[in-house]
Amino acid sequence: KIEFINFSQVNVTDAFWKPKIDKVATKTLAACIYQTEVATPRIRNFERVARNKGEQHEGIFYDDSDVFKALEAMAYSLKTHPNAEMEKKCDEWIDKIAAAQQPDGYLNTWYTLKGLQDRYTDMSMHEDYNAGHMIEAAVAYYNATGKRKFLDVCIKWADHFDALFGPGKRHWVTGHQELELALVKLYKTTKNERYLKLADWLLSERGKRLAKGYTWTDWKDTAYAQDVLPVKEQTQITGHAVRAMYMYTGAADVAAQTGDVDYIRAMKTVWQDVVFRNMYITGGIGSAGSNEGFSQDYDLPNEQAYCETCASVGMVFWNQRMNALTGDAMYMDVLERSLYNGALDGLSLTGDRFFYGNPLASRGQHQRREWFGTACCPANIARMVASLGDYIYAKSDEGIYVNLFVGSNTSIQLPKTKVDVKMETNYPWDGQVKIAVDPQIKKQKFKLYVRIPDWMYNQLNTDGLYRITNTGSKPLQISYKINGKLLSGTYENGYLVINQEWKKGDVVELELPMDVKLIEAKAELKQNNNRIAIQRGPVVYCVEGTDNNNKAWNIVLPADTKFETIDYKIMDEQVKALTAEVPVVIVAEDGLSIRTEKRKIIAIPYYTWANRGKNEMQVWLPTTIKDVKINY
Amino acid sequence: KIEFINFSQVNVTDAFWKPKIDKVATKTLAACIYQTEVATPRIRNFERVARNKGEQHEGIFYDDSDVFKALEAMAYSLKTHPNAEMEKKCDEWIDKIAAAQQPDGYLNTWYTLKGLQDRYTDMSMHEDYNAGHMIEAAVAYYNATGKRKFLDVCIKWADHFDALFGPGKRHWVTGHQELELALVKLYKTTKNERYLKLADWLLSERGKRLAKGYTWTDWKDTAYAQDVLPVKEQTQITGHAVRAMYMYTGAADVAAQTGDVDYIRAMKTVWQDVVFRNMYITGGIGSAGSNEGFSQDYDLPNEQAYCETCASVGMVFWNQRMNALTGDAMYMDVLERSLYNGALDGLSLTGDRFFYGNPLASRGQHQRREWFGTACCPANIARMVASLGDYIYAKSDEGIYVNLFVGSNTSIQLPKTKVDVKMETNYPWDGQVKIAVDPQIKKQKFKLYVRIPDWMYNQLNTDGLYRITNTGSKPLQISYKINGKLLSGTYENGYLVINQEWKKGDVVELELPMDVKLIEAKAELKQNNNRIAIQRGPVVYCVEGTDNNNKAWNIVLPADTKFETIDYKIMDEQVKALTAEVPVVIVAEDGLSIRTEKRKIIAIPYYTWANRGKNEMQVWLPTTIKDVKINY
Repeated sequence: KIEFINFSQVNVTDAFWKPKIDKVATKTLAACIYQTEVATPRIRNFERVARNKGEQHEGIFYDDSDVFKALEAMAYSLKTHPNAEMEKKCDEWIDKIAAAQQPDGYLNTWYTLKGLQDRYTDMSMHEDYNAGHMIEAAVAYYNATGKRKFLDVCIKWADHFDALFGPGKRHWVTGHQELELALVKLYKTTKNERYLKLADWLLSERGKRLAKGYTWTDWKDTAYAQDVLPVKEQTQITGHAVRAMYMYTGAADVAAQTGDVDYIRAMKTVWQDVVFRNMYITGGIGSAGSNEGFSQDYDLPNEQAYCETCASVGMVFWNQRMNALTGDAMYMDVLERSLYNGALDGLSLTGDRFFYGNPLASRGQHQRREWFGTACCPANIARMVASLGDYIYAKSDEGIYVNLFVGSNTSIQLPKTKVDVKMETNYPWDGQVKIAVDPQIKKQKFKLYVRIPDWMYNQLNTDGLYRITNTGSKPLQISYKINGKLLSGTYENGYLVINQEWKKGDVVELELPMDVKLIEAKAELKQNNNRIAIQRGPVVYCVEGTDNNNKAWNIVLPADTKFETIDYKIMDEQVKALTAEVPVVIVAEDGLSIRTEKRKIIAIPYYTWANRGKNEMQVWLPTTIKDVKINY
Repeated sequence: KIEFINFSQVNVTDAFWKPKIDKVATKTLAACIYQTEVATPRIRNFERVARNKGEQHEGIFYDDSDVFKALEAMAYSLKTHPNAEMEKKCDEWIDKIAAAQQPDGYLNTWYTLKGLQDRYTDMSMHEDYNAGHMIEAAVAYYNATGKRKFLDVCIKWADHFDALFGPGKRHWVTGHQELELALVKLYKTTKNERYLKLADWLLSERGKRLAKGYTWTDWKDTAYAQDVLPVKEQTQITGHAVRAMYMYTGAADVAAQTGDVDYIRAMKTVWQDVVFRNMYITGGIGSAGSNEGFSQDYDLPNEQAYCETCASVGMVFWNQRMNALTGDAMYMDVLERSLYNGALDGLSLTGDRFFYGNPLASRGQHQRREWFGTACCPANIARMVASLGDYIYAKSDEGIYVNLFVGSNTSIQLPKTKVDVKMETNYPWDGQVKIAVDPQIKKQKFKLYVRIPDWMYNQLNTDGLYRITNTGSKPLQISYKINGKLLSGTYENGYLVINQEWKKGDVVELELPMDVKLIEAKAELKQNNNRIAIQRGPVVYCVEGTDNNNKAWNIVLPADTKFETIDYKIMDEQVKALTAEVPVVIVAEDGLSIRTEKRKIIAIPYYTWANRGKNEMQVWLPTTIKDVKINY
């Protein structure tokens, strides 16, 4: 049984992530707080419920959830960045939330202000979803501060919901899944098994034509909320991407507790459908804006990519759980892809601008925004970055897993000893990783599992959906050193496994070669035919106008292009950029003719684009010219 | 007072239009009949109502209207192309329609099959719209055959509706305007003034917050059905384009009967808003797909243009009425633009394929289709072409108007004599027009008004929205001959006015110079900045891939391009095409470089595009290269 080390036990010191976590603790959360309580009526709706003077609800029926998600992010941040003022703000919000709870435990500002007679009549109206985020926030705040007030509000809500719905009681199909995973968190915190059973039961309600709500009755769309088949019989990914990710995360959480292999078996198949046929090279998912979700297999348009930030965050959640259930590093490979690319792109380098969708090509029409009417993404990326420490280390009775390469230190309790682990690295910009392993009781035998990323093997875990083309002719050599001595390792499920007696002062050193990889997509993925993408380490690159004479659509990337890695700065972000001489189309000054010239182009990490104004951008670049459009 | 000569009085002999009218009478109507009674359940819904056995309605709530519009087109065609078999088919359909009428006069298959208790509860549900098309069809069939059965059905329906709605009775705002203009037709046919009053009252109901229906209550869109202000106070075009066109046509019809100047004043202002800021060069309107209608002033995207065929047909209807109300030829200039371009494009050269939207640029994603789920356009273009004779001649007490140049003959009753008129021309391909004017009583003084198209003056009636650039330096010379003698004319409201005593054998000859006009759009119309369109006579041209090495986006059209006119064939359609040598972007065989070369390109009439398979196409071509996109 594998268990991830909670971020609260991990001290992140990393040159890449630490500044981002700090920025979330300051800039991003400041933006969330301002938008939640000043610029929009989100907090005011709670105040109106408490006043009970017949005031109207303002905003959308799921706006409560943004308050909770912001609180959750604040709670994570309080854990790593204690801040009395922010804690006071949390307590103030929690008082307002608690005052909006009804005597029977119900808590939802939309229905309470619109008229309680209509509650629980439309399963699409996010009563369950809002409550799920409330529980996640309350658990986080309890873990951060030890204060129970918010947790008790959630317990009261959960008991109220549990009294109404369940076996022999009323049916309920969650309209936007989220409550399931939240109830498992509540179960772990309270040890009350009823919440785990309720989560399991909610999952079991799907696929049985029990749902009532506008997405089912008006839209006639059972796939939208993954309700076509029972969860345990699902094989294909469908519908709204965030709903899907949260559902499978919840199912994995339940399975981890109950050992239910049917969930795991079903999810392995669905995961393949996502990763083998429906995932962008950025780890983003959900190509269609129409349903904020999945369309057809291999339909992955670049400019029109929806790729919601929340869906990439969901990929991080789900893949972490799949890794814990299976011990297979391929889930972490995908997690890392979504994390460094599709998810991180949702947050500006300044920390206070956001992308809702994350396209892979732009004619300059896209730009990061301060906030959104539907504001799920800002607080979601904030809570993920604030709890980034969650994804680095895991443990089992056998030993310790190093899943992400992030400068950090922690102490991990193994059956026979606590082990201090300290990782130093400049990943993702270079591949040197140094891991100091110090058992507190000397001479302990256990395994150290170090994930070897799929890109290092030149074999991406996507069943050929994406293929590295410039693999070269040299056989792959993976080597590591222990205490300076070169050894060859053994491999298991994508991990380098070092099984030995460890003693204080042991140091493992790896070097992950940071070659620039050129990637092509399966022929079925028509949008990328005759195109290549660029990846270095876990980072996917793009070509943005700012660095290339304001153009990104006039560049050819011949299949044999050789890139050089250079130090580069995007605003304050120190990165590795890539440069090469390739054919570029140049327009004559009189505008009546064009020519192709070899020019130096610069590719930058995808997650840094759109930070320097509106701009053309492409992730997938053409290898040859088939067609030219003038002034399109 | 100006009155148009009904198509039933006009014998069209024209080389351009006659084959099209014949094709509608055969191919197009055959397609409409097959789709209406075989391929779709439209006729079967009427049968189900008559059977009264609890069967379900199939299709959409406005499907009845397609039956009626097809019947109307068949009726027009019967007038010019008597056909016993088609008349039998009409009678068969009319029997089925009559059998579906309820005892109280109500007639609507959707509500009758769904449950009559819900009728007249949602004004957006097209009960009025369907009935309006029923009335138009019945009037047409009565005019074609003298048979009253269908007309009596409509009278019964109108009396039923009139008994429920009106001053002192229930309110009604038409959800999709159409009934207003139909009631004026019913009034003219029956002379029963109640129908005219009802039409006027329906118009007066708008803009007063009286409407109930999903477009108002769910979409919260009062602009969609032009319900923001009372019709007489409207100044701006808003919302759904076809609804708008039918409403203003109805208002013009009412005004023509009542002399209500408030309608006319309001419509002149709205018309300017359409033609000066919101009309495509093709005479198409309604740029946005989201509301099938108008968006912002000067927002006229080419590839995404909605430009519904029905909206261009509506432009023909409305502009004819505006011309009759004002005697101003500028309305006919716009009518001609919509007719030869935006509307005619809706019908394939074979007569049995249709465009619903008519974009002005394509990457090859557009194609004509056999039919549509919402099938308003095919029968609409059919009825317009079948009654094309309606738009050629008009008369007043002062004399005769020649509004379109279409080979034809007719007899027109003036106050003192009947006048035989015969027009010979090869318009729009050449500008020779010969009009024989034969008063049956000799030596009659009256005026002959011949419209001089705006393009001839190099001054399009769009207040600078579109501007002809290659006007040359020669002053404009307009001349015409009477009986072979060259005379200069006088001009009034866009007409050449020949005021003289006419005698048998008088022949007026005009030559409209068919120079190729290069047109640029106002700077505010950003989508056309740095682009030109091509027009020759009333015909707007485009560049299609088929004629240009399968590409239309690699062509530059320098502002000084000189075109040569050539004879050309698009399938069986003999047309004038245009050719010029211009810079074209050529891709090298290895796909790694490009160059610009002068190549001959061919431009074809816009209405003929997309008849030879999927194809790139552009109406507005770039004058200089600003930007190049590879493999977009």
